[in-house]
Amino acid sequence: MDPLLEILFRPVDGGVTAPRGFRAGAVAAGLKKGGRADVAVLAAETAVPAAAVFTTNLVAAAPVVVSREHIAAGRCRAVAVNAGNANACTGAQGLVDARAMASATARALGCAPGEVIVSSTGVIGVPLPVALVTSGIEAAATALSADGGSSAAEAIMTTDTFAKEIAVTLELGGRTYTVGGMAKGSGMIQPNMATMLAFVTTDAPLTPEACDAVLRAAVDRTFNRISIDSDTSTNDMCLLMASGAAGGEPIGASGPAFEAIAAAVHHVCGELARLIVRDGEGASKFIEVVVRGAESEADATRAAFAIANSPLFKTAVFGGDANWGRVAMAVGKSGARVDPDRLEIVFAGIPTCVNGTALLFDEQAAAAALAQRDIVVLVDLHLGAGTSTVWTCDLTYDYVRINGDYRS
Amino acid sequence: MDPLLEILFRPVDGGVTAPRGFRAGAVAAGLKKGGRADVAVLAAETAVPAAAVFTTNLVAAAPVVVSREHIAAGRCRAVAVNAGNANACTGAQGLVDARAMASATARALGCAPGEVIVSSTGVIGVPLPVALVTSGIEAAATALSADGGSSAAEAIMTTDTFAKEIAVTLELGGRTYTVGGMAKGSGMIQPNMATMLAFVTTDAPLTPEACDAVLRAAVDRTFNRISIDSDTSTNDMCLLMASGAAGGEPIGASGPAFEAIAAAVHHVCGELARLIVRDGEGASKFIEVVVRGAESEADATRAAFAIANSPLFKTAVFGGDANWGRVAMAVGKSGARVDPDRLEIVFAGIPTCVNGTALLFDEQAAAAALAQRDIVVLVDLHLGAGTSTVWTCDLTYDYVRINGDYRS
Repeated sequence: MDPLLEILFRPVDGGVTAPRGFRAGAVAAGLKKGGRADVAVLAAETAVPAAAVFTTNLVAAAPVVVSREHIAAGRCRAVAVNAGNANACTGAQGLVDARAMASATARALGCAPGEVIVSSTGVIGVPLPVALVTSGIEAAATALSADGGSSAAEAIMTTDTFAKEIAVTLELGGRTYTVGGMAKGSGMIQPNMATMLAFVTTDAPLTPEACDAVLRAAVDRTFNRISIDSDTSTNDMCLLMASGAAGGEPIGASGPAFEAIAAAVHHVCGELARLIVRDGEGASKFIEVVVRGAESEADATRAAFAIANSPLFKTAVFGGDANWGRVAMAVGKSGARVDPDRLEIVFAGIPTCVNGTALLFDEQAAAAALAQRDIVVLVDLHLGAGTSTVWTCDLTYDYVRINGDYRS
Repeated sequence: MDPLLEILFRPVDGGVTAPRGFRAGAVAAGLKKGGRADVAVLAAETAVPAAAVFTTNLVAAAPVVVSREHIAAGRCRAVAVNAGNANACTGAQGLVDARAMASATARALGCAPGEVIVSSTGVIGVPLPVALVTSGIEAAATALSADGGSSAAEAIMTTDTFAKEIAVTLELGGRTYTVGGMAKGSGMIQPNMATMLAFVTTDAPLTPEACDAVLRAAVDRTFNRISIDSDTSTNDMCLLMASGAAGGEPIGASGPAFEAIAAAVHHVCGELARLIVRDGEGASKFIEVVVRGAESEADATRAAFAIANSPLFKTAVFGGDANWGRVAMAVGKSGARVDPDRLEIVFAGIPTCVNGTALLFDEQAAAAALAQRDIVVLVDLHLGAGTSTVWTCDLTYDYVRINGDYRS
């Protein structure tokens, strides 16, 4: 994406309902404690062009299996989401329950079940309390509102400490298009794995093919470039729906209008992805790992993830230690082509290593730089033009506490 | 390895100097604080058949680079080790210093520098205090003793909480052969990456080819099947030296004598590898992950490592939680072929999942099982005959503390 495009985006309120043609509703169906909202429905006026990407985990949750079938048509009327139960490792009954969620939504909206995407997040291996969820869906579908985006963003949270939503507008050929999004990050009702869900809407008249192209390109460099703890959920899902309510000619999978909308979707996905990292379990630091000079983008990504997922690197950042030796170690084990004698590492703005050899640096200045909330670690392999950025957080006592607590 | 062979092994004292034809010496050269021994020399009477495997990290330390050259001849007279400084990311001077270690050892023993393996462990990116190290080598070479194994095992420790050594004998064709070994595990002088070093000796008359075959087979299923925190050091090294001092015909790379010695070396490497895991940084639990029913051994190993390296799994074990959903998640993301509907998981002896679906289990019994120091997690993929075992430890507050502490 051309970064200059970003200056064309104007932030607006409303999240997923900021684009015209979308309404959302949320209710407390009784899955979360304390009467908090836990079921949300996001709906367009008709079945609109849509695309989705799903977890690559082979142990995929039932809603992922069902939604993969439903999105194949390239259109979707609505998505129904519950928090508090992942409906994963639930066998044949799990599939029955996921289909019941789609049917309940379809009945409430007057559409076909195959036009509904379903999504669940929460504890694994516990049967879905499907009666609670379908009652919740009916209530949420009744409560649909053109300013319901924020309440939906809250309903899909588990132990996220804040709701994650964003929307931007852009002017294009005399029209104003809007892209909105919401996401949830790493958290749990009971200690269980992080689950990433993201829903992006636009009123641009994208074709189904354009939706798919836009979404895959954006996810590849945003949600697929973050890591809290290297674990891949059974429930991950990112959905894009394009209502076309802003009007104009259909936008296919190429051309200037496509590029502009793609940039806006990329921007929205990137912001949501970074919000997920900022709210990572136990995180005290937000870390941007930039690898450049790699032989390819794939190599740069490999090296960046090796750093971002190294427990030794993550604990060093937590400890405020510019321990660049651990960065060198991670790059060396990553599988990327590396010439140790060309390695350059700039740790939180402090040059620590050139040509694979230590530089003397002011430890006090390093400690001050590492006291910041946001840390950038830059690695230059000096081998080629491959570049990649990955976002992660530190590994803290709180991460161990949150995930080591007993489920009860 | 045929497990029945293990009953033929008799444990003996003496570690690496238990086999005839080896002497070791250790001194405090001033690299560690508090006057603790930090330089060791292990020597045979002449250059004997030997083999070594080294870290696959492309950012390899200087002693790894030099030792790779020297072991190519298939023979080695001695190994010189220092703890307290890894001589990694030290550029051209690091290579000069590593060669100086070999030369000092060669001078003291009256052999060629190319017959000496050198090895370092400790902080990365700090120039080796080479004068201290070579003086230490000279003193250690003067102090060589046939019962110096234990002092060498202590000298190579960094923050290991106990020295790791073992030796066993076996009777073969009327002769007694001995295999001994020592290793160091995850620790540091100053917070830095774990470094695994292991040295194995035998008085069996292995040829260089047999040494190589024996060592690679043993390491592949012992040291290469452990993980403390998924990070691969720049300095890892495992060396096997065969003095032949027990006499008998040379033992080549096949036949019953080869198999018996190979089993003994496998046993010694396995015990050392498991001792490293027991002494993992911050570890409170020793975890054996067994995956069976995989399509291949490679797939089984992939799945086992995905479990062993999952921070969510490791924190769950720390918290005493039979959170089998995280095991299912890890298997699903591992890259191994998995049919979710066949997945079976037995967590600390408690059946928790069959056919990919939750079993009801007694949470109190599970809590009691997980209170044990040693935990076995068994996964059956029910797809084939591939089996693999990986050993790991839990992820604890102490891991974060040890690695988050500032280096100073």
